[in-house]
Amino acid sequence: MRDAYVVGAGMIDFGELYDQSFDDLLEAAYLNLLEDVDKGVEPSDIDAGWYGTIDFANEGSSGASVAHATGLFEKPITRVENACATGSDAFRNASLAVRAGEVDLALVIGAEKMLDDTAGLIQGAAVERLWRGRGVTMPAFFGMRATRHMEVYGTTKAQIAEVSVKNHENGTKYPHAHQQFECTVEDVQDSPTVSYPLNLYDCCPVTDGACAVLLAGEDVAHEYTDEPVRHAGWGLSSDTFQRGDDLALSNFPASRHASSRAYERSGYGPDDVDVAEVHDCFSITELITYEDLGFCGDGEGGEFIESGAPRLDGHTPVNPSGGLLSKGHPIGATGVAQIAEIYEQLRDEAGDVQVDDPEVGLQHNIGIGRNATGAVSCVNVFDRG
Amino acid sequence: MRDAYVVGAGMIDFGELYDQSFDDLLEAAYLNLLEDVDKGVEPSDIDAGWYGTIDFANEGSSGASVAHATGLFEKPITRVENACATGSDAFRNASLAVRAGEVDLALVIGAEKMLDDTAGLIQGAAVERLWRGRGVTMPAFFGMRATRHMEVYGTTKAQIAEVSVKNHENGTKYPHAHQQFECTVEDVQDSPTVSYPLNLYDCCPVTDGACAVLLAGEDVAHEYTDEPVRHAGWGLSSDTFQRGDDLALSNFPASRHASSRAYERSGYGPDDVDVAEVHDCFSITELITYEDLGFCGDGEGGEFIESGAPRLDGHTPVNPSGGLLSKGHPIGATGVAQIAEIYEQLRDEAGDVQVDDPEVGLQHNIGIGRNATGAVSCVNVFDRG
Repeated sequence: MRDAYVVGAGMIDFGELYDQSFDDLLEAAYLNLLEDVDKGVEPSDIDAGWYGTIDFANEGSSGASVAHATGLFEKPITRVENACATGSDAFRNASLAVRAGEVDLALVIGAEKMLDDTAGLIQGAAVERLWRGRGVTMPAFFGMRATRHMEVYGTTKAQIAEVSVKNHENGTKYPHAHQQFECTVEDVQDSPTVSYPLNLYDCCPVTDGACAVLLAGEDVAHEYTDEPVRHAGWGLSSDTFQRGDDLALSNFPASRHASSRAYERSGYGPDDVDVAEVHDCFSITELITYEDLGFCGDGEGGEFIESGAPRLDGHTPVNPSGGLLSKGHPIGATGVAQIAEIYEQLRDEAGDVQVDDPEVGLQHNIGIGRNATGAVSCVNVFDRG
Repeated sequence: MRDAYVVGAGMIDFGELYDQSFDDLLEAAYLNLLEDVDKGVEPSDIDAGWYGTIDFANEGSSGASVAHATGLFEKPITRVENACATGSDAFRNASLAVRAGEVDLALVIGAEKMLDDTAGLIQGAAVERLWRGRGVTMPAFFGMRATRHMEVYGTTKAQIAEVSVKNHENGTKYPHAHQQFECTVEDVQDSPTVSYPLNLYDCCPVTDGACAVLLAGEDVAHEYTDEPVRHAGWGLSSDTFQRGDDLALSNFPASRHASSRAYERSGYGPDDVDVAEVHDCFSITELITYEDLGFCGDGEGGEFIESGAPRLDGHTPVNPSGGLLSKGHPIGATGVAQIAEIYEQLRDEAGDVQVDDPEVGLQHNIGIGRNATGAVSCVNVFDRG
């Protein structure tokens, strides 16, 4: 088995992209990717594609949509969907194909139109009918996690808000972020309550976007760049929908399992991670994720954010790109965009959000399934190869 | 790179399964699979899963649904969607992971609830808005293909109907088929017109179903069976949505490209194929597919069916299971069920539809994308290893 390397990344500005079709988003990310590859790439060199999208709007589903938008006809292109881990799992499948040696150069592209007629459907569909009929929405589910974490560990609303403050500050420095404004803990707490204890600024916005990365086998990676970034390991875990099986209800077992496998496969541990892009659909999600990824101990997430450790200049910078809270969360694109940012970071090309000389990067998603926050988690670990 | 082998298959009876939930279908196929493995298998041995479903009903999407229905918690499970090639592409992705050496034993499971609130949505979603607003349905698209084939090659309605006669005859001998009745060419032509020249019996039924197969790396396959079936090669092609680029309009370029790659990868050609399960969503689709797969020359599909070559006792038996026309077409399950049938055939365990001592089998799907019949095709080739 050979290794797989990221050799290029193409982001678009996330935002309210009413004036762009699904095809427009795919095309823009793809063209930006072609531009980004250091030594250039011919479309004919691309052997296969993996396409991540939830696509509840039924506009761009199936692999042929990517062929249509990019001109990559006759290429094998698979659509992957795995809740909020859609983009990262599309990447994982592409990497496996490259590792198998059957594909030398693979396109991974994720896109989502969230603002047309999608978001309400996703909201409704991801929550099982039993629950959605009773008004239990995504913020409600994550709000319950937050109250549990507060009850069990003494975490405070102010600590939870600190996550949003950090990520919005980072987002103002990241050119592709959707909601670029700074805010204070007081601003977060003064924003309208969405579902106690989560206020508006504790929630990620509803955002359109797309992102593409290119993966190459180790024997060809240097044809495209002298600084490829190695996909060092992965973990993907599917958890029960029955939350009663989760004794703590304060953490995400799927994140714990996925990250432990990714650490095992990569040979790295949490202390080795120099930069991370993690799933902060709500501020509480990132705080819990510090613990699940082993950046701090159980119940120490509140202290971890207070200590400044996950800030740009901290010990373990988390979400330099502004995270989902500032950058936005166009589901199929989210994981791919996180990987694009890790690629830039490990190449020291992350501009105003560059962290200090990172050697190992981690990307993390967690997804909801029916009535369970955290039914799926995907973690990918990268290094400089 | 190592080879991947099918080591078990679990079918359920396809039909109108109003009394079974999505989870019920998944569970039943999974349990049948566990029962089917010659030397037995422990669920804990299964390293990962790939799940094929369109799931427009939003009941069972994302990998965690399979974990929920099977108890395979903490396993990495990916949902794949690729129009009507969903099941076969899920299989392809599992095979790539096994070949990469990162997964020793992979579950592939496909399921679809077509009869609740899905079919209308699929119908509408797969056809681009421009067209669906004008009443252009799937039978209309395939009907236009049929009239073109008749015009260009002189194919007759009776020849097209012969495909349905053959497959319904096979279906009466296949225990899991949905619509088990024999019919004559006259019966087909006397059934109501759906979209000229396609009559009701030229169209596959709307069917619920599920199917699962198990894939193993070559170094472990014999732990599960002494007669594993090798995945010898694959092709997946994504074609343009712009049918104007297809000069003939009488065949499916995606099928031609996918099968040529599958032949190339496997080292086999059309003359080597001893049994095939191909995509007969409409009778005309199978007739065209004879040509696209190289079983006969261009324009010779009508003569090929008339000659009896694709019958159970013919030179190249096609759709011994009754095909989609008789067995049914629960989209995510369809390709997996075709592979299950090839597995049985190559092990000489196909009961009343067993063909004579086959050594090489082929499985084929073609899928619609927006306004294009045939925007995706997946072909998998198998042998006795």
